[in-house]
Amino acid sequence: MTTETKPTFNVVGTRPIRPDGVDKVTGRANYGADIALPGMLYGRILRSPHAHARILGIDTSRAEALDGVRCVITHDDLPGASDAILDFGESVSPYKWVLEQTFASEKVLFQGHPVAGVCATDPHLAEDALSLIEVEYEVLPPVLTVHDAMAEGAPILHEGMKTVEMVARFVPGDGRGERDSNIASQLEFEKGDPAAGFEEADIILEGEYDTAAAHQGYIEPQTGTAYWAPDGTLTIWTSSQGPFAIRDTVAHMLGIPMASVKVVPMEIGGGFGGKTKPYMEPAAAVMSKLTGRPVKMYMNREEVLIGTGPTSATYVRCKIGARNDGTLVAAEATLAYEAGAFPGSPVGAGASCMLSNYEVPNLYINALDVVTNKPKAHAYRAPGSPQATFAVESLIDELAERLERDPMELRAQNAAHEGTRRADGVPMPQIGAVETMQAAIDSPHYRSEIGIDEDGRLVGRGVSMGFWHNAGGESSAYAMTSADGTVNLSVGSVDIGGQRAGLAMQFAETMGIDYERVRPQVVDTDQIGYTNVTGGSRVSYASGLAVHEAALDMQEQLRQRAALIWDCDVDAVSYEDGALNGPDSQQMSFDEVCGRLQRTGGQIQGAADVSPSRPGPAFGCHIVDVAVDRDTGKVDILRYSAVQDVGTAIHPAYVEGQVQGGVAQGAGMALTEEYVYSPEGRMANASLLDYRMPTSLDLPEIETILVEVPNPSHPYGVRGVGEVPIVPPLAAIANAIYDATGIRMNSLPVSPTKLLDRLLEE
Amino acid sequence: MTTETKPTFNVVGTRPIRPDGVDKVTGRANYGADIALPGMLYGRILRSPHAHARILGIDTSRAEALDGVRCVITHDDLPGASDAILDFGESVSPYKWVLEQTFASEKVLFQGHPVAGVCATDPHLAEDALSLIEVEYEVLPPVLTVHDAMAEGAPILHEGMKTVEMVARFVPGDGRGERDSNIASQLEFEKGDPAAGFEEADIILEGEYDTAAAHQGYIEPQTGTAYWAPDGTLTIWTSSQGPFAIRDTVAHMLGIPMASVKVVPMEIGGGFGGKTKPYMEPAAAVMSKLTGRPVKMYMNREEVLIGTGPTSATYVRCKIGARNDGTLVAAEATLAYEAGAFPGSPVGAGASCMLSNYEVPNLYINALDVVTNKPKAHAYRAPGSPQATFAVESLIDELAERLERDPMELRAQNAAHEGTRRADGVPMPQIGAVETMQAAIDSPHYRSEIGIDEDGRLVGRGVSMGFWHNAGGESSAYAMTSADGTVNLSVGSVDIGGQRAGLAMQFAETMGIDYERVRPQVVDTDQIGYTNVTGGSRVSYASGLAVHEAALDMQEQLRQRAALIWDCDVDAVSYEDGALNGPDSQQMSFDEVCGRLQRTGGQIQGAADVSPSRPGPAFGCHIVDVAVDRDTGKVDILRYSAVQDVGTAIHPAYVEGQVQGGVAQGAGMALTEEYVYSPEGRMANASLLDYRMPTSLDLPEIETILVEVPNPSHPYGVRGVGEVPIVPPLAAIANAIYDATGIRMNSLPVSPTKLLDRLLEE
Repeated sequence: MTTETKPTFNVVGTRPIRPDGVDKVTGRANYGADIALPGMLYGRILRSPHAHARILGIDTSRAEALDGVRCVITHDDLPGASDAILDFGESVSPYKWVLEQTFASEKVLFQGHPVAGVCATDPHLAEDALSLIEVEYEVLPPVLTVHDAMAEGAPILHEGMKTVEMVARFVPGDGRGERDSNIASQLEFEKGDPAAGFEEADIILEGEYDTAAAHQGYIEPQTGTAYWAPDGTLTIWTSSQGPFAIRDTVAHMLGIPMASVKVVPMEIGGGFGGKTKPYMEPAAAVMSKLTGRPVKMYMNREEVLIGTGPTSATYVRCKIGARNDGTLVAAEATLAYEAGAFPGSPVGAGASCMLSNYEVPNLYINALDVVTNKPKAHAYRAPGSPQATFAVESLIDELAERLERDPMELRAQNAAHEGTRRADGVPMPQIGAVETMQAAIDSPHYRSEIGIDEDGRLVGRGVSMGFWHNAGGESSAYAMTSADGTVNLSVGSVDIGGQRAGLAMQFAETMGIDYERVRPQVVDTDQIGYTNVTGGSRVSYASGLAVHEAALDMQEQLRQRAALIWDCDVDAVSYEDGALNGPDSQQMSFDEVCGRLQRTGGQIQGAADVSPSRPGPAFGCHIVDVAVDRDTGKVDILRYSAVQDVGTAIHPAYVEGQVQGGVAQGAGMALTEEYVYSPEGRMANASLLDYRMPTSLDLPEIETILVEVPNPSHPYGVRGVGEVPIVPPLAAIANAIYDATGIRMNSLPVSPTKLLDRLLEE
Repeated sequence: MTTETKPTFNVVGTRPIRPDGVDKVTGRANYGADIALPGMLYGRILRSPHAHARILGIDTSRAEALDGVRCVITHDDLPGASDAILDFGESVSPYKWVLEQTFASEKVLFQGHPVAGVCATDPHLAEDALSLIEVEYEVLPPVLTVHDAMAEGAPILHEGMKTVEMVARFVPGDGRGERDSNIASQLEFEKGDPAAGFEEADIILEGEYDTAAAHQGYIEPQTGTAYWAPDGTLTIWTSSQGPFAIRDTVAHMLGIPMASVKVVPMEIGGGFGGKTKPYMEPAAAVMSKLTGRPVKMYMNREEVLIGTGPTSATYVRCKIGARNDGTLVAAEATLAYEAGAFPGSPVGAGASCMLSNYEVPNLYINALDVVTNKPKAHAYRAPGSPQATFAVESLIDELAERLERDPMELRAQNAAHEGTRRADGVPMPQIGAVETMQAAIDSPHYRSEIGIDEDGRLVGRGVSMGFWHNAGGESSAYAMTSADGTVNLSVGSVDIGGQRAGLAMQFAETMGIDYERVRPQVVDTDQIGYTNVTGGSRVSYASGLAVHEAALDMQEQLRQRAALIWDCDVDAVSYEDGALNGPDSQQMSFDEVCGRLQRTGGQIQGAADVSPSRPGPAFGCHIVDVAVDRDTGKVDILRYSAVQDVGTAIHPAYVEGQVQGGVAQGAGMALTEEYVYSPEGRMANASLLDYRMPTSLDLPEIETILVEVPNPSHPYGVRGVGEVPIVPPLAAIANAIYDATGIRMNSLPVSPTKLLDRLLEE
């Protein structure tokens, strides 16, 4: 479905075969675990069994004595480690946090916190050696929720960490000011006059909401292989969303030049935000330096769950005010997101996204980043937005009911539009909020009747909007011609969702040549200009812009060459539709000119570095029908439709896949996925059997409707598609459960137990 | 020694550590034979035992039936093979010759000519299978010398090959005109009025000279591993001087797009011109396609000697005319170079170089490319020049004796200078011929006495000049900044003689930054713009120019970024000595600006493609003292000095190494190296025990004197250094032998047998 007259493209919008497809379906593609190097050693990590404890001593001697063990390292073996020890002021470099996360220095701060590393000639031997390392702990009381963390007299994770300039209006009794605090930072957004706004309101609704930590659940566990060569160069093979991010972090941590670290991006089995920072790579590097051998490390699933970063568990209190005609006039929210052991939850993005679907003239948001004794939270698809949006979209649903309005019509009435200022003050450019809402209203799903469940279950329908601002940032592209008119195209954006295809398509479109003539490759950090992570739904936009500009660079050079060949002024030559046009109707195709480049100065390279700052914000609207089993509390999804403004769908099949994947993950957060902790702070469900992600059996075919309101700041109108679809499912499903049962579930996930308790209360 | 005021450089002219040094001395560097891929098969080649024979039939069935054999292929399995069969007209694409060389179609044309290929799970099994292939031959009479080949009624190698436009004045009875011929082509150079020039001469000297085929003798035998992936892409790992040359040839031969072939350049154990064309790579590729597995192939030393291309055996007749005052007035020469089985000897370069040391107003040169039943000649360091120069420099030596002149003074009197036209008509740019000759005259060696040999051997001194025009051609460079001010630099020129260091040095010099900040890498053909072979002494010049221009591209971008940061016009910003200077004395170092690039549009890439056509011709003058044993004919080199105009020595240590290596190889051609054939055309000395290359025990320390007359067409004055030093040794040593014994050895190598025969004649 298209809401504007769509320009005619030759390549963009088609569905060609992806270049990495054959490799991936035949098993030839190389992932991090496929690395095998001569003389390679295997590293394993000893992890803390305690959520919070002081390390009194580590005795590695028995492990070191084990035959086949080549080295055992701890925090003290990390370069620069001494500077980092418990120097946890607010201005501490983020690299120090990574250093501390790599190996604990004086305290362990979560169950799974690495304490020591072993490398040995065999992975099993390395595993055996772990049990020979003796660590003496003084166990400390753990802090496991934001409420515990902010309570008066709570145990402090980071002595010396203070939250200055704290002006909490909603959270009493935290450690603001000069006292040590578990609140790592606070962010406030204010717009209009919130107090006056609420005065104006005819109706005010308020609620408290919480969500559980949920893991990205990528299929491929983390790996990291490092070789610190005798010439001082360090090569790291890892499957990551951001090889340059890994490179720069490791170089900073280890105090070596960036250009001497090469990160080779292996194929990646999913990341969803969770693979942008190094976990084992620094340890592997140090062990490689000590042993002179390549060192390979990989996590098992338990380590992935306890040792890497899920998204934050969150607490949100939210209040909205509206007039009786449905106009939103004010909103107020407090967000407290768990950062885990080190500062850095996505609470800021949650705060800036939660109200962005609407024009809300007066608002105040107070966002708190709170450390707890859990693994450091990591980015997870539209980081922070699903949780805060859950609160707002639940309240909007309530408002529609109170005003007896169609929930989509009410939303459309308040839709954000060009010029609407987001909570963070940024004005919206041309956006597709209204178009997305209207497409949902017009959709077959929304116009259908829910009907009655044949098994007698309670059925209901819910809707929710979802917003993500999308991202720009640094991307580079580099392309080379060959004499036969084929092109090699190098990019630094690792291919998670079809980037090779989508970027080659944009390049081919700009050059006016066939997609098949372009051979795209994702290359290592030595072979391409700096490129930011594949994340934030930035690649098709920013790297797309880079390949487009590299193509323009190539066209400019081709014009100069054609001018040489035709002996005319370069201004008399134009490049159009894959051909050069000169004076007197002279013409040369791209192939022809490539065949003649050798004599005019050689084949050409086109390169471009971009760092665009005007990504296209995007909206999704999801419609879901659920059935609730009264006897068990189990919620089944009967039908699911996702409407999304994608700007322009470069390769519609991959866009649809992104939307469907986002829905599946959002449904997991809504219904089944959660980190369950014992009172001591140990994860009780650290396996994929117990940590329950939705499977294909849990979900119907997800219907997708692509709305295309082009982003004017991208030549083909790309907005970015990956993040938005994870945002609406939480509220949409909760609203559908309310529609079915009359019960508002403000705490996610809506597990059968939780819902059954409520059903039994009624 | 410097003959001009040398500009002051910061990096150029210093002797830093080479980036590939540690890898190479520790054995970590990966050469072609180090490749090991999962599921890899091993290929072997069945070679013809006959020098000339018709293939009546090939039965591969027994070989195919051997357990472990995966496929057996012949010429018929090569794509496009049918077009190539005996279609050997003059206009045939050179790719067809490579196809025919890969596997013989109807005829075998040299001993060692590949007839079939086997691939199996084990290299020994593949070897065993070769003996199970039954080939029926009709043996034909072989043609083994240029004289045999040009004789009336000679057996014809390539039916249909005619030498049109043949106007041979010196060679009677060849197959010119419309008859089939073994003369593949003829080239004529004429300047002035040769007949009138000889009229003017007071003295005319004439001689006939011949040289033997000599192998480049690289330490690493040829290898080639290919994987034709299910997605249609072909990857080739090979140690070659020109990965792009290999790529393009293979793509052409196999009819696939260039961009779908990736050639990964492995480290190279020498090439000297012999590793620019594929030998086994196409066979490995086809066998990989048939089996779906990577296929690895490598030669043993016998295969290298009989199956790859040495330099031509040559015949040269030469005549020079001079006035009594020593002025050269005329020269005339006929060159007949063996091409081996397929057209393409370096006779053209021999013809254009042989007289280029001097101003010779009148000349005529007739150069013939002659096919024989031997392996196709390949380029070998200053291809063609040493052999033809041997003739000219022997005659100049004779002239000096006849005129009772100092041989160097005589040469200096006739030295070429700026504006002198070479035999091929190209006028000399600024050159260092006079400076080189003068430096030789002034050298400690030339000014020394030879003395008397303590063992009573005959001692003598010889000198010779040597010329090489050097080469330009296509090169690309690509560089990327990092936030800490370090730079990755990619080049396509494989590193034979220190290219990584020499190119990084030029880049660092232009950028005004430390050499250590630049990390150079030689990358595969997917990762860099088209780059011609590492050969012809072109890399420091052409790729040097490319890295220089890539640095200028980077500077231009840095100026634009600085203008953004300082909010000023870009014209107000200059880049100098590694720093940006703005208005009001603002300054930022390269490091500083790199650290600020993220906010101004991202890190930057600099790229440049060049194809310079004005390389700096270069001259060498060698002085050698020899001792001749009267009883055995053995010649020992007592002292050797090589004076050479190198333009500018980027890294003097590598320049000296190049000069010394060239001398060693030239000495081999002068004294010991030759292909010895049986009357049936079988090589009688196909091992390094019997094919006698000089070792370190055969040579004294070679003294080098670097003359630096900058090449004005290169920013740092580079000329190129690798080729020149192999040119003078042949004549210098022969002249020294004459000085010692009074015997002119016009036939090389001067083996003890040959010289003893002459000594006994006296």
